[in-house]
Amino acid sequence: MDGYVFSLEMQVRDYELDAEGIVNNANYLHYLEHTRHQFCAKNGISFAEMQERGIVPVLNKVEIEYKSPLRSGDTFVSRLNIERKGARFVFRQDLFKTDGTPVVKAVVSCVCLSDGKLDRGDMLAEIFKDFLK
Amino acid sequence: MDGYVFSLEMQVRDYELDAEGIVNNANYLHYLEHTRHQFCAKNGISFAEMQERGIVPVLNKVEIEYKSPLRSGDTFVSRLNIERKGARFVFRQDLFKTDGTPVVKAVVSCVCLSDGKLDRGDMLAEIFKDFLK
Amino acid sequence: MDGYVFSLEMQVRDYELDAEGIVNNANYLHYLEHTRHQFCAKNGISFAEMQERGIVPVLNKVEIEYKSPLRSGDTFVSRLNIERKGARFVFRQDLFKTDGTPVVKAVVSCVCLSDGKLDRGDMLAEIFKDFLK
Amino acid sequence: MDGYVFSLEMQVRDYELDAEGIVNNANYLHYLEHTRHQFCAKNGISFAEMQERGIVPVLNKVEIEYKSPLRSGDTFVSRLNIERKGARFVFRQDLFKTDGTPVVKAVVSCVCLSDGKLDRGDMLAEIFKDFLK
Repeated sequence: MDGYVFSLEMQVRDYELDAEGIVNNANYLHYLEHTRHQFCAKNGISFAEMQERGIVPVLNKVEIEYKSPLRSGDTFVSRLNIERKGARFVFRQDLFKTDGTPVVKAVVSCVCLSDGKLDRGDMLAEIFKDFLK
Repeated sequence: MDGYVFSLEMQVRDYELDAEGIVNNANYLHYLEHTRHQFCAKNGISFAEMQERGIVPVLNKVEIEYKSPLRSGDTFVSRLNIERKGARFVFRQDLFKTDGTPVVKAVVSCVCLSDGKLDRGDMLAEIFKDFLK
Repeated sequence: MDGYVFSLEMQVRDYELDAEGIVNNANYLHYLEHTRHQFCAKNGISFAEMQERGIVPVLNKVEIEYKSPLRSGDTFVSRLNIERKGARFVFRQDLFKTDGTPVVKAVVSCVCLSDGKLDRGDMLAEIFKDFLK
Repeated sequence: MDGYVFSLEMQVRDYELDAEGIVNNANYLHYLEHTRHQFCAKNGISFAEMQERGIVPVLNKVEIEYKSPLRSGDTFVSRLNIERKGARFVFRQDLFKTDGTPVVKAVVSCVCLSDGKLDRGDMLAEIFKDFLK
């Protein structure tokens, strides 16, 4: 699981800052979610389409390390890798400032529900088979 | 439209502050929305129940004046009045610090959709008839 | 005040949606703020730089009409005009879907504080003089 | 580290829901932050006061497991424990629905900066000594 399969450039918006002048800790989860959704939309299926087909990805765990805070005006790149572990899809997601400084390192686990029940994820695995080892 | 028919006490949460150390302008719309939803839930019908009955209130205009900013730790009271003007429901919503200082003054207009079409609002008017003059 | 002096293309992020599947009303104020800040940063001075120079723009009124909701995946353009009215700077800010459908129409008024006191805004007026009639 | 030393009752606000009708994953970090800040404010020192004294707590890691989603109208209790591990303060933070159903389980690590440098945390440890084993 060395390389990344998707990258998205983003820029801090001032309303994401908190009183310390740095991006609030929760907003990094927004960046990570937006990256996953863009990865899905550009590589096969949007979240709206998943819902129409009855596939409901559900987050079950996030581990996030905060390395260096983002500030007003900062641009950054959000990189993603995906791996399947049984019924779970595990995203490794890292943010870097444009100069390469690590911002956050995260591991995000999802499972899929189909018709409200835990699903083995075979439909998603088929869609993302080029990215799964 | 002098008095208020509903009041809700709230407190600033630090994640609502921006880099200037004051509550970000958009968060006041969150406070106003939460107050309207609590007013509805406590006086007849929650938004979840409205959706189940096919009533969809849609915001069509907000006018908000910012009088004095809220800061970390501030408590405030959110007051609401409601009036019907034809198909529109007009909420006058004002926030005050606990010491009486005006924070924002807002006028919020909603209409109702039923099955996707503009509705005269008679179902909501019946539910809120005690509050409408 | 017919034309626009600044435009910014943006895309809905799924975390901005609410339970009705449309962008939550408060997030449009985030879009408008981000557009004003980008306009300032690209045309002379960022908000961080303003603060360093002791210029503090303060929102005093927002009027926003909601014309057509944004949904998952929608792209839109945020357009801005600026006008000076005495000590106030008045931004007319409109959002349109990529197909031209109006999304919101807003008028946003700001004043400037210098060292905590209301300021005539001459420093900002000088910076933005090419955009002010 | 069995019991909890602080509890806060909260209620879901509808603007915290996403298009699936459940609280968006990032908002749980807001709930956790608000709980930590309330714990500090009620037991010795607010975040505003910390900043005045030059103490800057910085998040360095969050591990959060999502057990059961919160929905419109849900009330919940946010419980917290605190432990010191060298220079780090480790918060165990769990949310439960009012009926006892686990919502999220989280472990949150912070360090302190003083004058921009990593600090052993002795000032905070002194303030919270009754809660630290």
